[in-house]
Amino acid sequence: MKFADFHPGQVIHAGPYVVTPEESVAFATAYDPQWFHTDAQAAQDGSFGGLIASGWHTCAIAMRLVVDAALHDSESFASPGLKYVRWPHPVRPGDALRLQAHVHAVRRSESRPELGILEWRWQLFNQDGTQVLELEATSMFRLPMALRQLL
Amino acid sequence: MKFADFHPGQVIHAGPYVVTPEESVAFATAYDPQWFHTDAQAAQDGSFGGLIASGWHTCAIAMRLVVDAALHDSESFASPGLKYVRWPHPVRPGDALRLQAHVHAVRRSESRPELGILEWRWQLFNQDGTQVLELEATSMFRLPMALRQLL
Repeated sequence: MKFADFHPGQVIHAGPYVVTPEESVAFATAYDPQWFHTDAQAAQDGSFGGLIASGWHTCAIAMRLVVDAALHDSESFASPGLKYVRWPHPVRPGDALRLQAHVHAVRRSESRPELGILEWRWQLFNQDGTQVLELEATSMFRLPMALRQLL
Repeated sequence: MKFADFHPGQVIHAGPYVVTPEESVAFATAYDPQWFHTDAQAAQDGSFGGLIASGWHTCAIAMRLVVDAALHDSESFASPGLKYVRWPHPVRPGDALRLQAHVHAVRRSESRPELGILEWRWQLFNQDGTQVLELEATSMFRLPMALRQLL
């Protein structure tokens, strides 16, 4: 998609992304080696009755789905940050995650007119329809001259 | 550290974590395959004059430093989310990142007294002292009975 293809109210769907046990444990072993992410036997007796994925892994999966569905062929070049992140429900190995991205705002930067700014909410749902991730992201796009003049 | 070891005003230091080019490209190839994260030649001509790490990779590195410095031997078991995330400056392959975690609040959940709640700000700085990440996280701890009675 190009920056010009985004509009407020738009909903972008992507997935499913199936979280394998191997990938979940590998991610956590590298970046979030807490026992309930990495030790299946200990996790059985833990709060969730089994392994859960790192919340950062869930975020990374959302990013992958957003890149594949919307950013891979865009003018996207950076993000200044996220308004918030919520992990309302654990992700378990074997879950199949689907993305819904709701576009809130599409505008040109007032201070840097070569920049397009997108504000959108990303949500991931598991195979039962339970929400496992919600965040609001700001994405920045480097606009081609022609589009800049149109806006 | 245990939940009882945290107190408001506390500052926890960790690192450095050196971001190798191989790890940076591998993370982005899996989770954020935008060209300025994965294609060194194209990135030379891009906005940053070279490859930069995925912001999600930067977050994952902060988590790893937090686990190693504070959570690995704690009662931590989950996080409901983050108040915000900011990526004020790009991370480049070769950067050596250091963590500062500032403890804001340490309290017991009113609705679930077996839960300890920690609110803290995580910042990563590169080898030049430039801030590359800031976020505010909430972490939850399952308190042992004795500590619960003391609070």
